[in-house]
Amino acid sequence: MYADIVKPTIVLDELRVRSNIRRMAHRARQNHVRFRPHFKTHQSAAIGEWFREEGVTAITTSSVTMATYFADHGWNDITIAFPANVREIDQINQLAARVRLQLLIESEATAHILDSRLTAPVGAWIEVDAGSGRSGVAWDDGGTLHAVANAVTSSKLLRLQGLLTHAGNSYAGRSLQDVAAIHTETTTRMQRMRSWLMEYGFLGLEISIGDTPACSMLEEWGDVDEARPGNFVFYDLTQMTIGSCSAADVGFVVACPVVAVHPERNEIVLYGGAVHLSKEMLPQADGTPSYGAAVWLQDGGWSEPISGAWVRSLSQEHGVIRAAQPAWDQGLGSVQVGDLLGVLPVHSCLTADLLKEYRTVAGERVRMMGW
Amino acid sequence: MYADIVKPTIVLDELRVRSNIRRMAHRARQNHVRFRPHFKTHQSAAIGEWFREEGVTAITTSSVTMATYFADHGWNDITIAFPANVREIDQINQLAARVRLQLLIESEATAHILDSRLTAPVGAWIEVDAGSGRSGVAWDDGGTLHAVANAVTSSKLLRLQGLLTHAGNSYAGRSLQDVAAIHTETTTRMQRMRSWLMEYGFLGLEISIGDTPACSMLEEWGDVDEARPGNFVFYDLTQMTIGSCSAADVGFVVACPVVAVHPERNEIVLYGGAVHLSKEMLPQADGTPSYGAAVWLQDGGWSEPISGAWVRSLSQEHGVIRAAQPAWDQGLGSVQVGDLLGVLPVHSCLTADLLKEYRTVAGERVRMMGW
Repeated sequence: MYADIVKPTIVLDELRVRSNIRRMAHRARQNHVRFRPHFKTHQSAAIGEWFREEGVTAITTSSVTMATYFADHGWNDITIAFPANVREIDQINQLAARVRLQLLIESEATAHILDSRLTAPVGAWIEVDAGSGRSGVAWDDGGTLHAVANAVTSSKLLRLQGLLTHAGNSYAGRSLQDVAAIHTETTTRMQRMRSWLMEYGFLGLEISIGDTPACSMLEEWGDVDEARPGNFVFYDLTQMTIGSCSAADVGFVVACPVVAVHPERNEIVLYGGAVHLSKEMLPQADGTPSYGAAVWLQDGGWSEPISGAWVRSLSQEHGVIRAAQPAWDQGLGSVQVGDLLGVLPVHSCLTADLLKEYRTVAGERVRMMGW
Repeated sequence: MYADIVKPTIVLDELRVRSNIRRMAHRARQNHVRFRPHFKTHQSAAIGEWFREEGVTAITTSSVTMATYFADHGWNDITIAFPANVREIDQINQLAARVRLQLLIESEATAHILDSRLTAPVGAWIEVDAGSGRSGVAWDDGGTLHAVANAVTSSKLLRLQGLLTHAGNSYAGRSLQDVAAIHTETTTRMQRMRSWLMEYGFLGLEISIGDTPACSMLEEWGDVDEARPGNFVFYDLTQMTIGSCSAADVGFVVACPVVAVHPERNEIVLYGGAVHLSKEMLPQADGTPSYGAAVWLQDGGWSEPISGAWVRSLSQEHGVIRAAQPAWDQGLGSVQVGDLLGVLPVHSCLTADLLKEYRTVAGERVRMMGW
């Protein structure tokens, strides 16, 4: 069934991916929240169509380039959930002329530059840092918030839509309680920011949130207007560790040829390295990194992660799987050069970005942006 | 000078890169060692020509795909320095029919499979693990070495060339003494393995080594026949930390647009994330990771790394630069949205692999494999 695979290849379970999409779309409807999924995870027009079949009409991307790709594939309501990059003003203007485009603004400086150089109307979200510490106006900095809102509303072509955040801090969660607490904190802070602006007369502002852990683990999303999760389309080892999904929800693994077997140290060397999986890692209980979980490829898909078997190191093209003694004795010790092993990735977004193409369990190719 | 750069872009200093190539080629000649540079770092036919101008005729690649690309660009003596992937036997046979191809073998199993399926002659290097613990026959396992040598020499189309190793453990070195000690240990072990095989009548075997730290830091490479360094073409922050190079040798930085400035925490948000730089990191003195060093872009190149300014976190497209107070006060605090900042990469091989294209300081495009 996988005889055609000769180098590291994503094997994608279309049924699981469609089920992940359907479940999240359903939950958004139940919450009466606009579902604007982040397409940076899959970066594929073909997988975009699976979203369209679930009623999705609005999307999120992480770059102007990616927004342009999806605009070329018929998407016409796109938020670029990244601080507006004013050096790409020409590309932004081209895009704004043909789709409903929304940008993120977090400073007066950006608002002023856009005001002077935009040639088509653009929706503006003020990005708020509700605790993740990456980008956005700090959740307790009402002065900057007010100044940015003023700069946006006084510009000719920017229309203020609302406040947007990405609670990246939920990725540090390891339980429903952790994720729920972060979500409550996030939404409370966002609502407080919105109330603050209302006092200054900024009315009708929406709140957009979007992390996969909260959207997956919480049935009720609270008082928000839009949700932009992305990773849930595939999930991965990180989301399993947080508790956002089970292994049975993970949408792809990377099939890797076995190129060497080292019984003297219970290790298997794979063709599958940093340029295929990415160097994203999860620390294990003993502090050493895991770059992925080993799975068996099987007819129609793959197994649960093999207990006690993980990718312990990656170099450019090599991946080394180490197995605890029971895992070695109960199967990995029988693996031969020329076999395939699956690796369930630590971070599916980065792995997909590297491999640029999917092969379904059934053997069909699904292409990504740029290929 | 960089006005055309609107998204994360490699800026390459052709003079430095050519100087790195020339210096290493010269040192190989002085050592009377065949220089077979690893092309996995740059993956570019155009940069390959710069090597050819220094007399290079033999190269190393890390995959069959990469070997095929360089064969298409006129290289006809290629070692794939990766454990032979027997699932790619068709591609290997196609390549072996048109170039002088060498593969790495570390098991009887691989030798037997190749023997039964090769249709053209191939040179074989037995890979030895001289202490790095990744792939190869363990340096103290004479029994396996002998068995693999027998399997190779009794096959119809494999010709035993010698013993090859990559001392990846030198990357843990932090001084000339460290690297020299590892190199001595490596070459001593390789020579012992060769002597062992000589006692069994395997004569005329060569020794191939190849790590950038040893080849850069040691004027004398010892009793070896071939050297395959790769990273030296660009160097990077890792090599600076080991002591293989100075900042003035590093061949490229990534020019990144500034998209947000956060004076309240001395941080600058760049368009430049894990999909541009890779998640390769170096731990700093306090244990926190650095994903790159900040530099100023200047006419004709870039500055030394800005002391006390580093990429403290990466997400898919965001990079966050943090600055100590002196660095903030003496320049970074004046950076504006829309400016460019340079990032000197932690691991140039992975960054080049992600960005797929170079732009020289002079504004010329240099393309890579696959683009």
